[in-house]
Amino acid sequence: MQPLHVAIVGATGAVGKELLALLEKSPLSLRKLTCFASPKSIGKTITFRREHLSIESLSTHCFTGVDLALFCAGKEIAKMWASKAVAEGALVIDNSSAFRRDANVPLVIPEINPEALSQHRGIIASPNCTTTLMLMALFPLHNVNPIQRIHAATYQAISGAGQKAMDELLQEMRLSLEGGTYQPMSYPYPLAWNLFTHNSPMQENGYVEEELKMVHETHKILNDETIAVHATCVRVPVLRAHSIALHVTCKEPVEMKRMISLLQCAPGICISENVPHMPLDASGQGAVFCSRIRQDLFDPHALSLWVVGDQLLKGAALNVLQIAEKIFLAYIHQ
Amino acid sequence: MQPLHVAIVGATGAVGKELLALLEKSPLSLRKLTCFASPKSIGKTITFRREHLSIESLSTHCFTGVDLALFCAGKEIAKMWASKAVAEGALVIDNSSAFRRDANVPLVIPEINPEALSQHRGIIASPNCTTTLMLMALFPLHNVNPIQRIHAATYQAISGAGQKAMDELLQEMRLSLEGGTYQPMSYPYPLAWNLFTHNSPMQENGYVEEELKMVHETHKILNDETIAVHATCVRVPVLRAHSIALHVTCKEPVEMKRMISLLQCAPGICISENVPHMPLDASGQGAVFCSRIRQDLFDPHALSLWVVGDQLLKGAALNVLQIAEKIFLAYIHQ
Repeated sequence: MQPLHVAIVGATGAVGKELLALLEKSPLSLRKLTCFASPKSIGKTITFRREHLSIESLSTHCFTGVDLALFCAGKEIAKMWASKAVAEGALVIDNSSAFRRDANVPLVIPEINPEALSQHRGIIASPNCTTTLMLMALFPLHNVNPIQRIHAATYQAISGAGQKAMDELLQEMRLSLEGGTYQPMSYPYPLAWNLFTHNSPMQENGYVEEELKMVHETHKILNDETIAVHATCVRVPVLRAHSIALHVTCKEPVEMKRMISLLQCAPGICISENVPHMPLDASGQGAVFCSRIRQDLFDPHALSLWVVGDQLLKGAALNVLQIAEKIFLAYIHQ
Repeated sequence: MQPLHVAIVGATGAVGKELLALLEKSPLSLRKLTCFASPKSIGKTITFRREHLSIESLSTHCFTGVDLALFCAGKEIAKMWASKAVAEGALVIDNSSAFRRDANVPLVIPEINPEALSQHRGIIASPNCTTTLMLMALFPLHNVNPIQRIHAATYQAISGAGQKAMDELLQEMRLSLEGGTYQPMSYPYPLAWNLFTHNSPMQENGYVEEELKMVHETHKILNDETIAVHATCVRVPVLRAHSIALHVTCKEPVEMKRMISLLQCAPGICISENVPHMPLDASGQGAVFCSRIRQDLFDPHALSLWVVGDQLLKGAALNVLQIAEKIFLAYIHQ
């Protein structure tokens, strides 16, 4: 493998920072790293493998010579710049929702559908964080006993709503503990000691965008549009790591011992048969944690489980990097 | 109606305090109120309708002359004292789980199955808080289109785990915001910025007791053991009010407009068609709040909704008082 010139777009954001930390230890061989961020970060430097790098801004021809561009910015930035990066010769892996539903763009979790990578035309999308964590847990089961219905209720960390929400929660919590009163600032309601429906836009059908991502992305990744996915997405006062209460109905009756052993052997999964996992267990960890694997009391085809994972790692930065490694490290063996 | 001698068992606990506040404003006519609590509260006084009352301890013949004994203590106290209270002539309404599954004890939500009250033999049970909030929202729908399957994922306030858990959470939160470290005290894991499976005992089948209460109590209250109930119960860092993500499958296709109008007209229900409710909206409120009422995207027989309610009020003290009012105020009209 030729050493790569890698660019990270959104290098100073929450996902970008995680990606830089992961890339430091990655077996990917780099000849150069370029870090792009929004104008407010220009002038800052980041340290990568003991080198100090200046943050640069996106500009015409900024991707010239770049082999791999990892986009960790919002969908608007991706829509504006990803095709330019491709035109300038880069392979783009995008963590935003910009291209996930585009039929020409593979949507990939390397443990699940690596074969889709070969179809790319320059852009590969990494799925929504909650969808990735959910499918990591469900795929080993689906693989042997097709899942026909999924019920998901999420307990999503506030950090996913952005730094402003996080700062506001911390500030409100401080004031609340000091016995003071507080007025909501950027949010229209209090965040401390509260929880709220996921902050993505509410659609006409009553679902928020995050819930529909879980439907559409599940269909695309598992390549089956008949799977009935129902989700309720909620933000809770947890700083990091998402939890999901999952219930699935399979085509055939479920053999619980087999299901548990399938999860035990699955790559990227850490299971507990006794003690349920909590967000603090998963924070900073790359694995997806599965516990409370139990049979439905009324339906022999159904089981439920409790899934916890770090939305910034396997839910975002780690999956992006794993896609890159799958592509570039696979060349070694070709 | 003859003015009643009412006793409250567990008057200094979280539910007992709420019950006293509700009783102050109740149309029930009282000739005497006796407050019982555990030995550590003896010597304390409480103020009720401007009178100072001493806390008493439970003892032989302590229920003599009592017409109505409202038990807001644990199930052990109820098991030990409820039948004695009945033998001494009191009608017992018990908020604990001691008698809920006893075939001789009606389990009642007055808006749902008041007819069961006539079957009592001295003891009436009030359901588990989460079950009450859930069934308040579901009964108006079930009544016209029988519910066959329920999926519930709960977001339960930490206060339900007791004062110790609440104090520990507040203390951990303080230390966390000061940047200090903290060791779990009465809990084996940190509570701040975390969430955990409901703290009731885990059963051999992998369900915690709270989840099974939701199964069995739903069957008893709706008088239908075929309803497939699946629950995942979780404690979140919210101080008061429980939230429940609910998905139900009905016998017939659901007409959404009709379902919404049924909930709009249902007693004790407050609905929002646009803005989802949050725990802070429901804290201190007697109503059960329903929002996010939306059709399943794949099953015309199914819909989902988001239910929030104060577990200390309709989930406990208010339901207990409403049972009492149903019985004793009904006499006025006889």
